[in-house]
Amino acid sequence: MLPFSSFGESVVGSPFDTDFYKFTSGQFVFAHKELRDVQVKYAFVNRTKGINLARVIDEHRLREELDEVRTLQLDEGHQMNYLRAQGIFSEEYLKFLKKLRLPPYSLEYGKNGFTLTFEGPWAKTIYWEIPALEIVNELYYCGLMKNYSDFDREAVRARGILRLYDKIATLKQFPKITFVEFGTRRRFSRNWQEEVVGAFAEELPTQLLGTSNVHLAINHGLKASGTYPHELQMVMTSLYPETTDGMVAAQNTLLDWWWKQYGYDYSVALPDTYGSDFFYRTAPAWVAELWKANRQDSGDPITEVEKDIAWRTRHGADPTKKLAIPSDGLELPKMISIQNHFDGRIATSFGWGTNATNDLGFDPLSIVIKPVVANGKGLVKLSNNIAKAIGTPEDIARVRALVGYDVKYSETCKY
Amino acid sequence: MLPFSSFGESVVGSPFDTDFYKFTSGQFVFAHKELRDVQVKYAFVNRTKGINLARVIDEHRLREELDEVRTLQLDEGHQMNYLRAQGIFSEEYLKFLKKLRLPPYSLEYGKNGFTLTFEGPWAKTIYWEIPALEIVNELYYCGLMKNYSDFDREAVRARGILRLYDKIATLKQFPKITFVEFGTRRRFSRNWQEEVVGAFAEELPTQLLGTSNVHLAINHGLKASGTYPHELQMVMTSLYPETTDGMVAAQNTLLDWWWKQYGYDYSVALPDTYGSDFFYRTAPAWVAELWKANRQDSGDPITEVEKDIAWRTRHGADPTKKLAIPSDGLELPKMISIQNHFDGRIATSFGWGTNATNDLGFDPLSIVIKPVVANGKGLVKLSNNIAKAIGTPEDIARVRALVGYDVKYSETCKY
Repeated sequence: MLPFSSFGESVVGSPFDTDFYKFTSGQFVFAHKELRDVQVKYAFVNRTKGINLARVIDEHRLREELDEVRTLQLDEGHQMNYLRAQGIFSEEYLKFLKKLRLPPYSLEYGKNGFTLTFEGPWAKTIYWEIPALEIVNELYYCGLMKNYSDFDREAVRARGILRLYDKIATLKQFPKITFVEFGTRRRFSRNWQEEVVGAFAEELPTQLLGTSNVHLAINHGLKASGTYPHELQMVMTSLYPETTDGMVAAQNTLLDWWWKQYGYDYSVALPDTYGSDFFYRTAPAWVAELWKANRQDSGDPITEVEKDIAWRTRHGADPTKKLAIPSDGLELPKMISIQNHFDGRIATSFGWGTNATNDLGFDPLSIVIKPVVANGKGLVKLSNNIAKAIGTPEDIARVRALVGYDVKYSETCKY
Repeated sequence: MLPFSSFGESVVGSPFDTDFYKFTSGQFVFAHKELRDVQVKYAFVNRTKGINLARVIDEHRLREELDEVRTLQLDEGHQMNYLRAQGIFSEEYLKFLKKLRLPPYSLEYGKNGFTLTFEGPWAKTIYWEIPALEIVNELYYCGLMKNYSDFDREAVRARGILRLYDKIATLKQFPKITFVEFGTRRRFSRNWQEEVVGAFAEELPTQLLGTSNVHLAINHGLKASGTYPHELQMVMTSLYPETTDGMVAAQNTLLDWWWKQYGYDYSVALPDTYGSDFFYRTAPAWVAELWKANRQDSGDPITEVEKDIAWRTRHGADPTKKLAIPSDGLELPKMISIQNHFDGRIATSFGWGTNATNDLGFDPLSIVIKPVVANGKGLVKLSNNIAKAIGTPEDIARVRALVGYDVKYSETCKY
């Protein structure tokens, strides 16, 4: 009987049981002396209203799992060689990675939940996000099923298999829909994600373009995919003056450095950190021309990708040669209508997360780990959905004013 | 990924991957010199109309599996000790079993199916039935799924899990229903039966009274259960004159010898070999008084168990102290209504087979292996359902006349 949840083994299987962008972003931070030693505090945030995780997740078990992550180490042979073979990582960075131990975490249990934070030099704290989210998710679902018999668990898994089967059957009818599996951070469990990615790889070989999870990419012969994350822009912003110009400079320096470091292959921009209107107003023309894709992570996808097309067009780029990567709370009907809407106008490919890897009949958690303080300054993320904003109310208000953020769109985060 | 069908491994896992009654019956035959060397021919019969097994089952694979069975051997330690621990097997029989190799099989593929027969001394041919049925079933379902992807197979399994889950949920609502798992001969696959019995053992510990499969009984700490089979009476009948008295003598000698050999614990009679009316008319009073149970394997279960009660009562036995074991094509609604009908009048416990171990969305096969010739004489089984009769038309007519068989009941064998 396949345990669909990793009872009795660690949640995080290896240092590769993480998203590939953690290595590209990690090297980005490591490679820039201005960024490497910035003190950054990351915090866990549960956006799911009405769920007290502290009641479900055993503190001792959570500590054990987090402690275990601090013992993980890349292996000298296979894992190091895999990174080397990507052709984008410097030996200096690989040497750093090999020695890396994650900084201590801080965990406090309270009546209404727990606080979980990670503090230290950015070059090291950046790696905590994914394993910590994996742990919280898996312990949460383990906790919900604490009193289930093995056979009850088999039945949960069977229901998941049949939902997955239906999804695959639907996707086969829409061969133009392609996607990357992005569900590591919100997965039901490690084994379940393995099952899902294995099924996608077997059943949809021309539609599954990759997975964000390095371990699974290797296991299934897939491309490990990822884009730069909000956190890069958030922390870099703290290094610039608290002005509109400072915010523009932070954003455009990120775009500049990322391009110089990784070039066309990894040129996927993320326009919504401070609302996509700010990005489309201030991002340089060369990005519109040269970068291959934008990832659309909040707001109404049709509206947002239309902005993307308008931006490309305005700067003389041909949108039909570009790619839009919607990745926000996707379910199949939405993917089908987005692909259909933009067919022939801009290529679309999807970053499919929670609904792919956590659809077994339990409500998914909407949890994130984001940088909240850098260099002693409170950080902010706005996104195109004010319900997804991160930061203190004062900081959010200040940043909204600086970027001229006027978004009314608010949607409860289902995922 | 658990293969729910044993692709790439042998269908028959061990000499214990058989029904327990093969050992009690096998010793019965071995212990009686009159029976031991009787030349018996067993034949495979496919009662499922419209299904040509030869089109689905690869001949080469079938031969490989049957050949493999001839290499199986009980192991000296654990398996021998298990049999010894039952307290009913003689050292002489165990020595015989240890050396036993099954006699050759005869297999011929034709346009409309294959013929599969086993011929030799009864003490050896008796063991072919179960492994051969296991093989035909599993190769048939493997064949049906030949072009399925691994994930298609996972989905078949998931549907099976959810059907099983529903059955278990229903059974939990009827705690008076108890049963023995009898599905080895009709199972979808070895691994699937293992799954089913494991789930029953975990979820219904007070309702599952055992399994017929020796290997699974050991694996799950269950009682290995079984009754004497039709074949004993069929072959013994061939040793007596072809008269009504001869048929009665064969039946009553079987009852006498079985009781002497195994006593109360194994005293479950099978009244329907030549129609239960014959049995209830001719079986001796001491059987009605002393034997603990009758198994009801054909005909309408309510009618048949009513006959059982009437027979017990007529002979002065108290039916409320006796047990009826319906085992014919059972599904849950039937089990519930039978238990309910007889509640307080006679104990019921069910022998649950095909619907337990082969309910994954494919039509089950109704296949049997029965002795067809013994001592050069054609054998007959009538049962209470003329659709289940075995034998040539002439032999059936002859035996019907001898036993005064007047049954009109005919029901297509779903299982």
